Amino acid sequence: MKKIKLNDLKEFSVKALLSAGMSETDANTVADVLITTDTFGVMTHGTRNLNQYIQKMKAGGLDAKAEPTIEREGTAWAIINGNKAVGMVSSYKAMNLAIQMAKKAGIAYVGVKNSCHFGAAGYYANLAAKEGMIGLSMSNADPIMAVPNGCKPAIGTNPFAFAAPLGNGKSVFLDIALSNVAALKVIMAREKGQEIPDTWLVDTEGQPTKDAFKFPEEASLQPMAAHKGYGLAVLVELLTSVLTGAGILSEVASWNLELSSVNNAGHAFIAIDISKMMPMDMFIQRIWQMADELKKGPKAKKADKIYLPGEMEWERREQVLASGEMELTDAMVDSLRQLSESTGIVFPIM
Amino acid sequence: MKKIKLNDLKEFSVKALLSAGMSETDANTVADVLITTDTFGVMTHGTRNLNQYIQKMKAGGLDAKAEPTIEREGTAWAIINGNKAVGMVSSYKAMNLAIQMAKKAGIAYVGVKNSCHFGAAGYYANLAAKEGMIGLSMSNADPIMAVPNGCKPAIGTNPFAFAAPLGNGKSVFLDIALSNVAALKVIMAREKGQEIPDTWLVDTEGQPTKDAFKFPEEASLQPMAAHKGYGLAVLVELLTSVLTGAGILSEVASWNLELSSVNNAGHAFIAIDISKMMPMDMFIQRIWQMADELKKGPKAKKADKIYLPGEMEWERREQVLASGEMELTDAMVDSLRQLSESTGIVFPIM
Repeated sequence: MKKIKLNDLKEFSVKALLSAGMSETDANTVADVLITTDTFGVMTHGTRNLNQYIQKMKAGGLDAKAEPTIEREGTAWAIINGNKAVGMVSSYKAMNLAIQMAKKAGIAYVGVKNSCHFGAAGYYANLAAKEGMIGLSMSNADPIMAVPNGCKPAIGTNPFAFAAPLGNGKSVFLDIALSNVAALKVIMAREKGQEIPDTWLVDTEGQPTKDAFKFPEEASLQPMAAHKGYGLAVLVELLTSVLTGAGILSEVASWNLELSSVNNAGHAFIAIDISKMMPMDMFIQRIWQMADELKKGPKAKKADKIYLPGEMEWERREQVLASGEMELTDAMVDSLRQLSESTGIVFPIM
Repeated sequence: MKKIKLNDLKEFSVKALLSAGMSETDANTVADVLITTDTFGVMTHGTRNLNQYIQKMKAGGLDAKAEPTIEREGTAWAIINGNKAVGMVSSYKAMNLAIQMAKKAGIAYVGVKNSCHFGAAGYYANLAAKEGMIGLSMSNADPIMAVPNGCKPAIGTNPFAFAAPLGNGKSVFLDIALSNVAALKVIMAREKGQEIPDTWLVDTEGQPTKDAFKFPEEASLQPMAAHKGYGLAVLVELLTSVLTGAGILSEVASWNLELSSVNNAGHAFIAIDISKMMPMDMFIQRIWQMADELKKGPKAKKADKIYLPGEMEWERREQVLASGEMELTDAMVDSLRQLSESTGIVFPIM
């Protein structure tokens, strides 16, 4: 397995984004979103995608120089027009605005339209947690999931995340797609020739299938827990697109398969200022009361540990930060190498 | 099957609540919550439980005369102390306060502590939808669900609901427990002697079991979609109890098995005022764009219809309202008859 120094990966990422015409501030924001996501072990949503974001800028589907603008705002809400900017740039601005508004009002909602794939939802929820808030973040996406009684992709997996501070720099956090499993899990099973459970996909007749080879042309993902995941995906669609002016359902293009198309995804961010509702010390004592009770509960046979949501991710991040370097998946190496070749920026692999 | 006129059920319910010492206003609120829930077809959470709420008042676990008080509030948030009032009374007040605050701020959060079982979460979300808002409502509950790697009840099924207006008096809405299936489904399988799928329960070693007879003494519910449902249940716990001052996890007693105990459940309500963000006409046009695309999508073999979240519930309610009468389940008849016997109020069954 290949390794890279975190600092080198950051420098490489920023240089690549600058070469695509992005400002230094925005390049640093995007690099931080992607590399933080890598350090949490969510390698599918980090720098692996950097090359495709930059290809999309070159193809015209993203505008590297665009500045997101606040289109309308009030006491505890705003709608931001991404103006075709990179999703991470609009989302960073949006969650920070929600945080500022929540400091006054106690809670705030900021919706984003005219945006694109924002990386991992959890990054933005954690921005709020860092500020002593409970953060929620979500996005719609191009349809890839069937709905109950349907048989074709009808709605996105519509990622949803939350984070709450633990008082030690870490958070309780969750970042999930609303399908039973991520598309990548299906693809990995396909590559290994494995049969999959009948809860992952439905075929073109809407029947469960164990054949991973049918995906994605002849199969759609199943929502998690059937009608429950469907309903939650609709909630995300309402808050991210119907209410913001972003593309609704099929109006959102595949961000990486249709590089020259404007994506028009929408996002939603909510921040809740804990310190308004109770002294922060008391909240931290109470969240640990919850955490300790969960973690110290009786364990299943052969299980060595009960994890809090997000705990595995923080463990991975601490390991990476302690060593200052990170192992790269093959997919990351391939993608970053391509980016290096197309930009002429040296890929500083160890 | 037994039938009852809606008006008679309302009158019976209000009389029973008045006989327990409740004010006329509060009795009407509670009756409306429960009967509306029945008309949506969610008979497990409606008037079937009226007898137990009243038994709980008599046993001292609920205070029929209590008035919930606003303990702290700000621009777009409040914490309400339920003061041991019936959960429906505090929740009705809380969501209405959230709606009033959202009319000014755009969004508002109201948390409730020192409360009890609030019936069906969807009722309160729909209060917001009726006012042209997107509403979220949720509650914690006594632990009955195991967490991943655990083997005993660790967290409640923590119901979660949302609703958004469709412009025709109805809403898109979802009201779910965060377990894979509701406890009642397990109990029904047990009564019929049916084997259940291995995704419903874990036994006392934390292993999936198909034996419904083990529930609830020797089995716990599984969270929906494993770690995803666990994480969402933690989010609900954070917003309803950790942040409000309500009982956390095991501090919440079973509301119906421990009638004399104070329940100390917590709730959370969020209202988002759509008309701040876009003209209501535009939102209605856009939510129907979403709804039509979902409903008109290609159907699975043998499926005759794709439903919006909440559509089945609205269909049931319209049928009941049109006829002015409702069929009662056996469990409802038993429970309401007991209430009639203990209060001396005639049960006006048809």
